[in-house]
Amino acid sequence: APPRLEVRDCIIIQLEILKSFVMIYAIREVNQRKPRVLPNFTIGYDIYDTCGDVDIAIRAALQLLKNQSDPQSCLVPENNTSAFSEPQTKVVIGERYSEVSTAVARILALSSVAQISHASTSEVLSKKYKFPSFLRTVPSDAHQTEGIVELVKEFNWKTVAIVGSDDEYGKYGSDRLEDHFTNANVCIEFMTILPGDFNQNSSLLPKLVEKINDSSAEAIILFTKDTYVRIIMKEAIKAKLNRTWIASDSWSTSSKISSLKDFGSAGQVFGFIFKRKEVPGFKDYVTSVFNGTTNSFIKHHLTRYKPCLNQSEENEEKNCSRTNTQQCLHPSCLATHLDQDESYSIYLAVQVIVEGLRRLLKCSNQQCERGPRFTALELTSEQVPFINERPSFSQVVPGSKY
Amino acid sequence: APPRLEVRDCIIIQLEILKSFVMIYAIREVNQRKPRVLPNFTIGYDIYDTCGDVDIAIRAALQLLKNQSDPQSCLVPENNTSAFSEPQTKVVIGERYSEVSTAVARILALSSVAQISHASTSEVLSKKYKFPSFLRTVPSDAHQTEGIVELVKEFNWKTVAIVGSDDEYGKYGSDRLEDHFTNANVCIEFMTILPGDFNQNSSLLPKLVEKINDSSAEAIILFTKDTYVRIIMKEAIKAKLNRTWIASDSWSTSSKISSLKDFGSAGQVFGFIFKRKEVPGFKDYVTSVFNGTTNSFIKHHLTRYKPCLNQSEENEEKNCSRTNTQQCLHPSCLATHLDQDESYSIYLAVQVIVEGLRRLLKCSNQQCERGPRFTALELTSEQVPFINERPSFSQVVPGSKY
Repeated sequence: APPRLEVRDCIIIQLEILKSFVMIYAIREVNQRKPRVLPNFTIGYDIYDTCGDVDIAIRAALQLLKNQSDPQSCLVPENNTSAFSEPQTKVVIGERYSEVSTAVARILALSSVAQISHASTSEVLSKKYKFPSFLRTVPSDAHQTEGIVELVKEFNWKTVAIVGSDDEYGKYGSDRLEDHFTNANVCIEFMTILPGDFNQNSSLLPKLVEKINDSSAEAIILFTKDTYVRIIMKEAIKAKLNRTWIASDSWSTSSKISSLKDFGSAGQVFGFIFKRKEVPGFKDYVTSVFNGTTNSFIKHHLTRYKPCLNQSEENEEKNCSRTNTQQCLHPSCLATHLDQDESYSIYLAVQVIVEGLRRLLKCSNQQCERGPRFTALELTSEQVPFINERPSFSQVVPGSKY
Repeated sequence: APPRLEVRDCIIIQLEILKSFVMIYAIREVNQRKPRVLPNFTIGYDIYDTCGDVDIAIRAALQLLKNQSDPQSCLVPENNTSAFSEPQTKVVIGERYSEVSTAVARILALSSVAQISHASTSEVLSKKYKFPSFLRTVPSDAHQTEGIVELVKEFNWKTVAIVGSDDEYGKYGSDRLEDHFTNANVCIEFMTILPGDFNQNSSLLPKLVEKINDSSAEAIILFTKDTYVRIIMKEAIKAKLNRTWIASDSWSTSSKISSLKDFGSAGQVFGFIFKRKEVPGFKDYVTSVFNGTTNSFIKHHLTRYKPCLNQSEENEEKNCSRTNTQQCLHPSCLATHLDQDESYSIYLAVQVIVEGLRRLLKCSNQQCERGPRFTALELTSEQVPFINERPSFSQVVPGSKY
């Protein structure tokens, strides 16, 4: 099994779990909204933690495809090898990493179950002939890579270095950057593709840090997942590299990076994120669940990662700036970080599903004309206009952020 | 679903099915050999036709992973989401295409079932952290691409063109060729990556043929699957391109290509194949099954694709040269084509499995010390020395072959 990130930092876990809270909140809001959006229907959900691991994600996908209404039924029925039985799960939200999303997409396509990722941006996922039931609420990296090149040209930088990784996100992203920079006559001093088993003990790590240190590149672009960036940045901080970095969306606002101590000594960062909006009503919801909730999933996690309810104002201030990652955030601090993460993309995924269901089931606010019997393929085939719009272009976050 | 090749040509089907015959023959030979190789054990098998399609192959893999001894058991047991139940299938031979092998490898890895491909050469499959239970009896394209560059240098060609495809075989292969040629100061006049939905109606096809026609490249390298090459070559023959082509292993001896009429007007071909040996005793076996067999699989196919038993000597001669692909080959002709295909790699895969079993079960020629209860992981973990040897280098087939 591939190495997994050891994350014991409380703030990181708190912020990651908040993403699940967003989905729960969005579904709850749809189920409770007045006038009703889906009269007579209630949306349910299962949550699986894939740990960002392909194997675990495939298992989870297979589990979801099982016809859950009949626990004895087999995934591949004996007398019907040509198709899966119709799964109870009609749509899947996720995964985060493109590598995991592609593996899951292959499985879900077998049953035509729609998959909506809130964060997987790899260009490869745009290929409909390979991933016919995959959708997403974030733009393809085709746009982000263009943006990075525009940024470099804007600053009139002549040489850059690229660090990618050997997965769907880092490989397609850095290949595309290479094309763009070559066309723009920007010199690529070096391009390093991290192997899929890269970790803090890789012999490559000290070599890479040395290479960056020796390099005259005016900007170092790290186009890879946040777990890898965290490993590199820890060393960059130690070595006080003091360079200019360009962050792809995966780590520009990742709590795994922003929670690193003394980040400033690594240098300054220009990060790309997608246009984000506040999830309407979510801040109030987060604050309210800390004062008591009936949701068992949220209850469970609040018990394990207790927010710091009894701290003084001074401590709150301190924690909001995330200087101590071992200590959990105050609820009011948690909320201030929400705008920077993937919350809105997750919220949007739920809205897309609801709009698809409204169209398929022919719902007004009073009633739905169709009953609950429909196939996953019917839902996947529904055209929801706003998911087909050209995505809003990514924007630059000032380097002063960190 | 991706477009599928329409193959009605009898010779092609005959030769493709012969590959299954090789596996059946090899297993039968192991079960019957005296002195016994696996005393008290009989190897069984299931054969699935994946049609080279990822979806069908994933379904087949899932079917194989089911604990077949208990048809009511589910793939993912209710109370055990951390692992699949131990499958009855302990090892899988295949797939042919690298793209399909990677998809299947992801699934089989979940149960640690060893997979031995007889034909998938993509470099990506060498990554153990991604494909921990994948093995193969053919060398990685790391070697073949080096060989192609050596060939070009040998002829002192200064410009080449590369046609790859957007799958694990064609993408990694052409990327690697690009690196090698750049290092060798050979000019790449153009490189075209065919999309995954490439077919004879693609608008890209006439453009590509025109591009090749206009190009001054001294050799056109087609590093993609035989089904795509067949589409391109049909047009190249029509347009009488008369160029020098370099064939990767996928099509250098493929019956899908060699059965094309008037191949010569497309030009001359230099093809790469892997060192091949005759499968000991297989020719006699093929001839004998035409005189009556008890194997139901072989019987079924012999009924559907009747060999031409009553033709005159003259006709036999004609058919051996494959000029008429609608007419089936005479059994004696079939046998003459066997050395050129993947037979030996398939035979070798069976031998590797047998050697692994002998070691795991601690067998002498008289008895095996262990009983039949072992896990897929135990077999996968067995070190079979000859599969770890550096593969024999590919060799050049003279262009005069076609």
